[in-house]
Amino acid sequence: MKGAVLYGPRDVRFERRDDPKIIEPTDAIIRISAACVCGSDLWPYRGIQATTKPTPMGHEYCGIVDEVGSAVRSIKRGQFVIGSFFASDNTCPHCNHGYQSSCQRREGVTGAQAPFLRVPLADGTLVATPELPPNEMIPSLLTLSDVMGTGWFAADAARVKPGSIVAVVGDGAVGLLAVLSAKVMGAARIIAMSRHESRQRQAREFGATDIVTQRGDEGVARINELTKGVGADAVLECVGTQESMMQAIHATRPGGYVGYVGVPHGVTLDGQELFFEHVHLHGGPAPVRQYLPDLIDRVWKGEIEPGKVFDLTLPLDQVAEGYRAMDERRAIKTLLRP
Amino acid sequence: MKGAVLYGPRDVRFERRDDPKIIEPTDAIIRISAACVCGSDLWPYRGIQATTKPTPMGHEYCGIVDEVGSAVRSIKRGQFVIGSFFASDNTCPHCNHGYQSSCQRREGVTGAQAPFLRVPLADGTLVATPELPPNEMIPSLLTLSDVMGTGWFAADAARVKPGSIVAVVGDGAVGLLAVLSAKVMGAARIIAMSRHESRQRQAREFGATDIVTQRGDEGVARINELTKGVGADAVLECVGTQESMMQAIHATRPGGYVGYVGVPHGVTLDGQELFFEHVHLHGGPAPVRQYLPDLIDRVWKGEIEPGKVFDLTLPLDQVAEGYRAMDERRAIKTLLRP
Repeated sequence: MKGAVLYGPRDVRFERRDDPKIIEPTDAIIRISAACVCGSDLWPYRGIQATTKPTPMGHEYCGIVDEVGSAVRSIKRGQFVIGSFFASDNTCPHCNHGYQSSCQRREGVTGAQAPFLRVPLADGTLVATPELPPNEMIPSLLTLSDVMGTGWFAADAARVKPGSIVAVVGDGAVGLLAVLSAKVMGAARIIAMSRHESRQRQAREFGATDIVTQRGDEGVARINELTKGVGADAVLECVGTQESMMQAIHATRPGGYVGYVGVPHGVTLDGQELFFEHVHLHGGPAPVRQYLPDLIDRVWKGEIEPGKVFDLTLPLDQVAEGYRAMDERRAIKTLLRP
Repeated sequence: MKGAVLYGPRDVRFERRDDPKIIEPTDAIIRISAACVCGSDLWPYRGIQATTKPTPMGHEYCGIVDEVGSAVRSIKRGQFVIGSFFASDNTCPHCNHGYQSSCQRREGVTGAQAPFLRVPLADGTLVATPELPPNEMIPSLLTLSDVMGTGWFAADAARVKPGSIVAVVGDGAVGLLAVLSAKVMGAARIIAMSRHESRQRQAREFGATDIVTQRGDEGVARINELTKGVGADAVLECVGTQESMMQAIHATRPGGYVGYVGVPHGVTLDGQELFFEHVHLHGGPAPVRQYLPDLIDRVWKGEIEPGKVFDLTLPLDQVAEGYRAMDERRAIKTLLRP
């Protein structure tokens, strides 16, 4: 088969790779129905994270089970499944607490930008849809593998509840789906921080009630103004830079919640400042597996359509253009069809 | 009157000061029944925090209302009252959310190591006991002003609940009362980190089930061992140094809670490390006012006796010896009687 391999900064190649095969008896092989490019793929693509050897790319996936290992019990050949970017056994103490992305047997899933993918710990990692989904539902189901699950975790970590005043830092795909998540959780007001018109429009479509175009201290001041000097109940940090993190912390009211899901790059927090800000801080890699059954159900019923976040669809062999478009911010998120 | 004034490192003097008087109509003057020396008083006492001018000391207090300003409504002359080290109006949005120590009109209370004290925003800050307390109850009531309220906040911020596995970092007075708080909240197991025998004994008396004498990475390894490799559900950080903070974060299971109440001195947190630790972090100056009615009730009923944390009682004029004994770790906490 041919799949995406990253060789170094801005060098993604679509090239021949070995077909994946069952290695452990708990593995499954799935035939990919759709994959996509993640904002976090851009860190190595841009060279901010080093690529030391040619690396198969892609960790967001859904598709049809093609083969299962001898120890796989619940997942069956022919099912349509979605899984997390971290494989988990879903039985260890951390999984039982709902933190499958910190599973004691956690294993990264990679190489999903390809026609076939090996998924470890299939029974613990994959969730099947009730039946084969209609084609137009696939983009939404795909988002549950990471980007929607991550936006949802941001809102969950920040304890968004009916009536909450929420601010979202970051207008990438995760930020936009964090807006949608806050909306579903009943937020009364959702302030999206965005300077790009097309993203502002999408944020409003997902439920944003206010747009703040300012950044840094000015952005914080604007949120303070909008909240009568109190600050937001919940701020969802979906970027991962020092500026975005401090913006999130400063925009939160004392006793309020910061849910942060942007992988921090070069972020340091001053303990004493954090102490007097009096905020709750929670984040990390989203425990997507915890949310899959609920979110599949919501997509299935047509209650949410997170797949709207894709604004570029390409055949898999044009994966390099998919990265370029996101890198140059011409696209919010690229869907790839094998 | 004469009260404690700090002039510089290890230079506390008991000397004549002006009697406090009503300045704002919302003030009250109280006659101090008991005051004490706080662990946080040791930061300036030791010169770690600079003292730029002679500073009246003491912010933990209880006593009889002597006089009230013309705008004070609920607090009456002759009542026995306890208040927080931060005055609050108890009506602003932050107070309504239970974060009175971040009140929009917050004002520090200081000068309590004296026979009389001015307390601003009396109606919002002070809580009266049902009637005048018996003498032997006064030490316990005094702790509610800060040290017990702070230990309680550590446990509350870390969401200790029935069945929780809790670890407490720090065996000072706050740490010991954090043990007591966790016990009251129903923790199944309370691991106290302490290397001092007398403090270990007190921790056990307050409800600790295990003692860990190791520190740093070794202490974390020991907690991991005690929790079968999972980590604690809740870790209460009651020191405020880089080492203690990292110890707390590393001893917490993914998805677990760190409640930190030691004022951080020179603490910085790496964003990416925190992200992958997957913990909840909450702390700050304890919203003592929120807890006062409940904790007064528990002391009144004899359900808790936090006053046991005092292991040295001195007349107020020996306040300098009270500081020395704590500085040299001869005493856990010094009670002062005017």
